[in-house]
Parts: sequence; structure tokens; C-alpha cells
Amino acid sequence: MSNFTPSREFLYNAWYVAGWASDLAAGDRVGRTFLEQPIVLFRTEVGEVGALEDRCCHRAMQLSHGQVCGNQIRCTYHGLEFGRNGICTRIPAQDKVPATARVRSYPIVEQDSLLWIWMGDPALADENLIPRHPIHSDPRFAWRSAHFAVNGNWQLLVENLMDLSHLPYIHPKTIGGNPELHFKTKTETTRLPNGVRVVRRMPSSTPPPTYVAARGFEGLVDRWQEIEFEPVLIRIHTGACDAGTGAYDGNRDHGFSMIGFHGITPETATTTHYFWSISTNALQNGIPDLVYQQTADTFREDQEVLELQQERINADPDRIMIDIASDVGARQAKQLIRRLIREEQDREIENAA
Amino acid sequence: MSNFTPSREFLYNAWYVAGWASDLAAGDRVGRTFLEQPIVLFRTEVGEVGALEDRCCHRAMQLSHGQVCGNQIRCTYHGLEFGRNGICTRIPAQDKVPATARVRSYPIVEQDSLLWIWMGDPALADENLIPRHPIHSDPRFAWRSAHFAVNGNWQLLVENLMDLSHLPYIHPKTIGGNPELHFKTKTETTRLPNGVRVVRRMPSSTPPPTYVAARGFEGLVDRWQEIEFEPVLIRIHTGACDAGTGAYDGNRDHGFSMIGFHGITPETATTTHYFWSISTNALQNGIPDLVYQQTADTFREDQEVLELQQERINADPDRIMIDIASDVGARQAKQLIRRLIREEQDREIENAA
Amino acid sequence: MSNFTPSREFLYNAWYVAGWASDLAAGDRVGRTFLEQPIVLFRTEVGEVGALEDRCCHRAMQLSHGQVCGNQIRCTYHGLEFGRNGICTRIPAQDKVPATARVRSYPIVEQDSLLWIWMGDPALADENLIPRHPIHSDPRFAWRSAHFAVNGNWQLLVENLMDLSHLPYIHPKTIGGNPELHFKTKTETTRLPNGVRVVRRMPSSTPPPTYVAARGFEGLVDRWQEIEFEPVLIRIHTGACDAGTGAYDGNRDHGFSMIGFHGITPETATTTHYFWSISTNALQNGIPDLVYQQTADTFREDQEVLELQQERINADPDRIMIDIASDVGARQAKQLIRRLIREEQDREIENAA
Repeated sequence: MSNFTPSREFLYNAWYVAGWASDLAAGDRVGRTFLEQPIVLFRTEVGEVGALEDRCCHRAMQLSHGQVCGNQIRCTYHGLEFGRNGICTRIPAQDKVPATARVRSYPIVEQDSLLWIWMGDPALADENLIPRHPIHSDPRFAWRSAHFAVNGNWQLLVENLMDLSHLPYIHPKTIGGNPELHFKTKTETTRLPNGVRVVRRMPSSTPPPTYVAARGFEGLVDRWQEIEFEPVLIRIHTGACDAGTGAYDGNRDHGFSMIGFHGITPETATTTHYFWSISTNALQNGIPDLVYQQTADTFREDQEVLELQQERINADPDRIMIDIASDVGARQAKQLIRRLIREEQDREIENAA
Repeated sequence: MSNFTPSREFLYNAWYVAGWASDLAAGDRVGRTFLEQPIVLFRTEVGEVGALEDRCCHRAMQLSHGQVCGNQIRCTYHGLEFGRNGICTRIPAQDKVPATARVRSYPIVEQDSLLWIWMGDPALADENLIPRHPIHSDPRFAWRSAHFAVNGNWQLLVENLMDLSHLPYIHPKTIGGNPELHFKTKTETTRLPNGVRVVRRMPSSTPPPTYVAARGFEGLVDRWQEIEFEPVLIRIHTGACDAGTGAYDGNRDHGFSMIGFHGITPETATTTHYFWSISTNALQNGIPDLVYQQTADTFREDQEVLELQQERINADPDRIMIDIASDVGARQAKQLIRRLIREEQDREIENAA
Repeated sequence: MSNFTPSREFLYNAWYVAGWASDLAAGDRVGRTFLEQPIVLFRTEVGEVGALEDRCCHRAMQLSHGQVCGNQIRCTYHGLEFGRNGICTRIPAQDKVPATARVRSYPIVEQDSLLWIWMGDPALADENLIPRHPIHSDPRFAWRSAHFAVNGNWQLLVENLMDLSHLPYIHPKTIGGNPELHFKTKTETTRLPNGVRVVRRMPSSTPPPTYVAARGFEGLVDRWQEIEFEPVLIRIHTGACDAGTGAYDGNRDHGFSMIGFHGITPETATTTHYFWSISTNALQNGIPDLVYQQTADTFREDQEVLELQQERINADPDRIMIDIASDVGARQAKQLIRRLIREEQDREIENAA
């Protein structure tokens, strides 16, 4: 039994997905809230990305309603301009810019078609630790992406993705399939140094219709479902090869492969940015679009569930919940999150002492 | 002068209307909140009605978004199934169901075309005490019903119905009539062991146009308005017979009769389920539909008033209000409610000691 | 540096604009909230204006949903009637009206086409102190008026109007003009006994297109922008005369003149009634309508800014803001407001002692 309290606590010292690189053309800006902090993301006219507090230091106007001019973003109210480092470079009708004229800036990096932001102590922001997703630039794969705004706590989304036993109930129309088949499949859960891995394999099984359409399987297949959590994203590998052709040894190029990327970024304690993509190596006949559409339909069903859960949790946040057998992976992911948050807080207390 | 504070206090040990029997076909479910507790009402495939807490014990998912299967309701997230007693009978992919896997169940009874729920201590739920409304199965009467969601405290609705002196002001278009006639009519208020009764009689008076249309009166009539409150519903008998034909001795079958049923079930401290029906013994020429439509229009006017009151009360809940002469019946009903709530709380304290 | 905390504090002992005289025909009523107090404004059948608490003393019904009858306003629920002094004159079905049957009445005066209300101690309501705006009845001027509901603290609106350096950024489409011209213009700010005055003059400058269209200037002009704050309204005089024809000595009748009136009445701590008018002495060719339309478009842009500021302020109300050079007038107005509020509170403490 576990007491799941979606708390106001966030993990700050982590790289979070802030958006898709394609969200921002040169000269664009957009306002988003991460971990309860309003941020303006912008791309300068030469293409560099910036992330500043979305509140002008003068009169609290939202910079995300301003304009990018050159390498600066200009507040639309009185025209103050700020660079990517948050320092004000110009105050109209005033010669001197005081040192106090600045807004908080956040480390932000563009990599693998994603924007990554660091919400914690900037001194700890090591770009080498940004999670990789090279599949986004692998020519053997096609991918599509989306950004869902979920009215639920971010850990509800982690739970949802770490335990696919909900598939037959929530998603009977798309990827659900036979409940009994799901339950008979053995699930192996492994703790990683900074993550959790859940593996389910269905050797010599009948391929689902989508798989046949995508890859033209004629007989039995070796299927896999592999889920990897690291703070704070989840990758889900699913697919199949003709039975006995080495899928479980890593030879999968000849099979059908789908790779889901799930960037999970808390907006507030009860709302979450869900940045996801789905990649596939079946490039013909509109399969990538079909896979995207089915995935989007499926995730909308999940979103609805999370929001219904959140309503009940809001009404009684400290209520005990029971765990069931299929919760193992989700439970381990949440334990890891709790540990990391605790360590972060301990470190802060230590530093303050 | 009375200090009407619509409080968070509810009367728990009482049978409340939970809905109309016809709201639930076999295999249906619906989520409703009563006394701030979210409930799923469902009807099994063999026709029995159940009422459970609308929150799965596993991950707080709303059971009202699940499916009825056989005699169980199944959570749509991970497939846990619960019987009408709230005990979990199946957890997918798990052989043993722990004793902790259960949700609260509520006594619920179907009677007189209504669903009655008991929100308090189940040990005190005596089905013999469920209020009766046999008119719903009396072939001499036709009736129509409705369910209004009122954004106002339940006691505001009790007040509204116990004092019909508001008719000429709120309802001039339908049942209002001449204010002066209303005020000249003597009102007799009587305390009952578990209720309050208000009687107004207008002997040898001119029948209103609706009455004439319904019953073809040609001369003066003896009219009545009789209001009965018991926790927590109100019945209102109105009608007329030809003058001097025994209406006040109980001989009314030959006259025109309307019987209103008003089930008043708190949803929250500031919102109320209003389950009402209107029955009439004038069955010809579309009279039942006409009566229903006029009643619905009238109650919508009342609903608007209650919601405007509630806005002001929310802004200043402890403000003193003055009473006026026509408040007698309403005041007695509220006194009874207060006494019952106090007794209930005293009993709880006693039991806890 | 100033700590701008839009507080719950209001200035009570002041005449506030409650509406436009034309908002209320004889027999009309309207509900509005000022300084967090719900008020019903009504005009009797003989044309006098009343202002009462918008909450019946009987059951908290909103009187603004009642009817004006003669010199009274009647509650639509049970028919209680109240005069302009708030005293109940009639309770239906009851001979005696108790002294407790009354609602709070507010001093209200109609003057210069405006309704002025006093929200503080009625004993201090001196009608001679009501701000004047005689331009509303000056036949040389035509004017149009509006009422905007702004989701922002009232002091944000004061700031906005006292510092027109925002014009080039927020209003480039209408009255913005060249930022550099704005910044080069010297601004003189003067403290008045009960106000602040900001004057900006642009002698021998090129007239804007609107000015030429309105007055047919053929050469350079002497322009002016004069802003006057007094609690709690702002007047803005703008216009131009042919250069060297005495505009700065007060001879302006031969030029183009626009006079803005800005009544700023707090509704709540975070919402504001904005009653404004724009008057002009260019009466021909639809100029008054054109001026009105441009002004309305401009003020909608300001409104949007205020609402975006308020969102950020709500999230972190005690955050320090920095001041810039062009804030002088706004800062002096806010200092005056703070002083008046403090004096008012000191007086209350004194009176209570």
C-alpha cells in the first residue's frame, strides 16, 4: 500500500523538455509555465534560443507578449530590452541602465529537435547530462510530434506510461488487444542507476493487424515492449520481427519498430506539459501518419483518465491508495523520483547551513 | 431575527433522493455528488441498483467512467471490478484480491419510481422510513419529472417552497396571481413530529384560468394549498373543487388536483440536486404536459433567485437576515433541520466517547 | 526602486464615478460592485438617482433584479420596498415594518452627465468636492463615452495613464508615433495639493495625420499633452495650434483639442470600472466618431496589458519592481494615493479610540 500524494514538490535540478525546436522560428517567442515559474522562450534573429522569466522587472508585464529584436527581447509595454542572459540592455528615455534591471535567465539547449531547460541551480546545469534521443535524426525513421496540455499531476502521467496493463481497458479501439494476452505476458522490471526499465516480450505470437499492415508479416513474430524511465521522460520501444530472427539479440532493423518519446514537464502541481513523439521505421504507404494518428487518439484517452483521477485527488489528496501487481515499474519510478527530490532538498539544507 | 448561515453541516442520517428510477437502465451508470461525497450509481444487468464511492481504491479513477459487467462495475483504468457491496471481486493479472481492495458502498433503494440513498451510518438505514409517494403509481394521476442542478444551498430551496408568498413577485407570468389575494389568505402552520405543514385555503373563490381549462369549473371553487415538509423533501398539494362539495373534508376526486414532489438533496454546501415531479388528475387534452411545462418554467424562475441569493451569501456568509411574517413555515422547517443535525452530532460525540 | 503591492486597500472617502447618467433611464436599475461592495443603482420614476446595498435585508436577494415602483425599489423575491434612503417602506402581508428593515444607502449625485458615488463615511460626503468636467456640457465640444470592465487593479490603470511613454510600444497602430520623438520631449511633473500634473510640449513640430485631417493644419504646430490626476480620475488634454499662435498661453479655441476623461473606480482589488469619455472641438466630417473609435481601440490595447500584468502580480504580489525615468508622474500619483489611504486609516483609528 502506498500513499500517493501528488505534492507540490518538484525535482528542480533536471533537464526538462521545454518544447519542440520547431515551436520557435527565428524571431518568435512563446510563454510557458514550468514548475510553476512563468517563462518566455524566444529565438533570436540569428537563431539562438533564450529562456527568461516571463515578467518584466519594471512593471511585471509578460515579456512573451513582446517582440524579438536582434538578439534581444523587448517588453511591449515600455520598451525595455533584455538579452538571453536576462540583463537589460536598454531602457528608453534613460541613459543609464541600473544593475538591478534584469530578469532571471534559465539554461536552455537545443538538441535532438528538442528544447531542454534547466529549472534548478544554473551552476549544476551540465549539458552533457541532457538525455539523448538520436532517433529524431536517424534517416531510417520517420517521426511526428505533439504537445498536449494535461490537467493532471506529472507523476500520474509517469504511472500511466510505466504500466501498460491499462491498455485493454482504456484503449480497446486501438492498441488494447486481448486483456488475457496482456496478463499472461511476463513483465521484467529492472532498477537502473538513474532510471527504471520494464520489459515485456511475446515470442512466437500472432502479429496485430497494424503490424501486418506496416511490415507484411506472414507468420508468427517475436514482439517486444520496452519502457525506460529516466527523470523526467519515458521512452517506449515496441515492435516485432519474424519469429526467431534475432529480435531479442538486438537485430531489429528488418522488423517493425515504433519508438515513443514522452517528455513530461510539470507546469503546476496539477497540470503537465506532455511533449511526445512517435517514430517508426515503416516509412511506406502513409504508415508514419497512421501510427501518429492512432497514437494521438490513444494518448487523448489517457489524458482524459489522468484528468478524472486528478479531480478525485484534489478533493482528498492524502487518501491512501492500494497498489496492485502490475504497479511494479510505476512504483519504482516514483520511488526514484522521491529519492531524488529528497536528495535535492537535503543538499539545499546543507548549502544553507 | 435569525442568523441564517447556510453551513457546511448536512443531515447525514436521512434518506435522500438520489435520482429517478428511470435515470438508470440495466447496465447504466452515472456519477453524482451528494453531501460532498462523489457517488457512482449503477444498475446491474439483472436490474439491481448499486451506489458506491466514485473513486477506485487503486488509483482514484472515477468508477462512473467504467462499465457495468454482470453484477459488477469495472474500473475503466486497470479493470478492477466491484460488487454492489463495494468489495473488489477481481484484479486483473493478480490471483489474490486483498481485503483492503474495496470502496465504500451506500444503502440504496428503489421505491415509488425514485432512487433513495442513505448517506449516514449504514447501521441506521431503515428502509421502512423511506418517505412514500404512492401517487407515482396511482392510475388516476399522470406525472412528469425533472432534475435541476441548483447553484444554491439546499436550505434556500426549502425556504423557497415553504413560503409561497413569493408567487406574485417571481411568478407573475404563470402561477403568481393577485398579490393582495395571496396576502389576505390565512396561512396555518403546524409542527409535525418529523415535519412542518402549511395550509392555505381560499373557499368560494374565482378559479384561475388554468383550473377552468383543466376541469371546466363554471362557478366558484374551494381552493387549497397544502405544503408538507419532512427531511428532506417537500410535497405541495394544490387544487380546487366546486364550492361546498367537500374539498376540505377530503373529497377531492371530483375536483382538479396537482401534487408536487420536491426531493432536495445537497450536492455541496452551495449546490443542490432538485428532483421534482408534478402529478395531476386532469388527464385529458394534454393537461399533464401543460402543467409540467408551466411548473418547469416556474421552477426555473425560483432557481435563478436562489442562485442570486447564494452569490450574496457567499460574499458575506455570517450576515444577519431579518424575518418577516410569511416566514413562519420556512422558519419552523429550518428549526427542525437544525435540531436534527444537532441531535445527530450529539449522538456521534456520545458514540465516540 | 518601489514595492508596488496592489493591495486590498482602497480610498473610501472620495467621490467615485458610478456610471454615466445615461446608463439609467427613469425606472431603470443596474447592479455594480464598487470597492468590493455590491450596489444597486436606480432611477425613480420622477428621475432621482439612488444607490443602495444590492442585498435585501430579508433573504439577501439582489435588489438589482427587482423593479422600480414610484420612488422605491422593490425586491423581486418577497416584495419588500425600499426608498433612496435605504429604509424599508413596505413588507407585504405585514402591517408593521420594523426599524431593522433597512439596507445601507450611499450618497449619489448626478453631475456633468456622470453619476458620482461616495463609498466612505456619509458624514464626510461634501457634494462641493465632486470633481467637475464641464466640457460634457460645453457646446463647442462633442463627446462620446464608454464603460470598460478591466481585469486589473485600479492603480495599474493610474500608472498607465500617467506615463504616456508606452504609446510607441503598445499603440503603434494609432497614436503611437515615433518612439524617439516621445523620448526627446521634456516632461514636467508638478505636485498639486490634491493631485499630480504632467505636461509635455512639442513646439513647432509636424502635426500627426489625424490632426491635419481634423483641423487642416498647413504648417508646423505647437502641440501639448497635459495629464491631470486627482483621486480618482485622470483628465488628459492633447491637441495643437498653428505654431506661435498662443497655445501655451491658453489660446486654444482656434486649434485642435481633445480632452479625455478617465473615471477609475475599483470594483475589487483586481478588477476596475473604467468610465471614460473623449471630447473634441473638431465637430465636422465625423471627426468625433473617428476620434472615439481610435480612442476605444487604443484603450482596449491598454486593457490587455493591464490584465497581463495583473496575472503576474497575482502570482507573486510582493515582488519588488524597478522604476524607470518616465515613471515620475505615476510614482507621484501613487505616493499621493498611499498618503490619502494612510491618513484615512489613521483618522479611523483615532475615531475608534
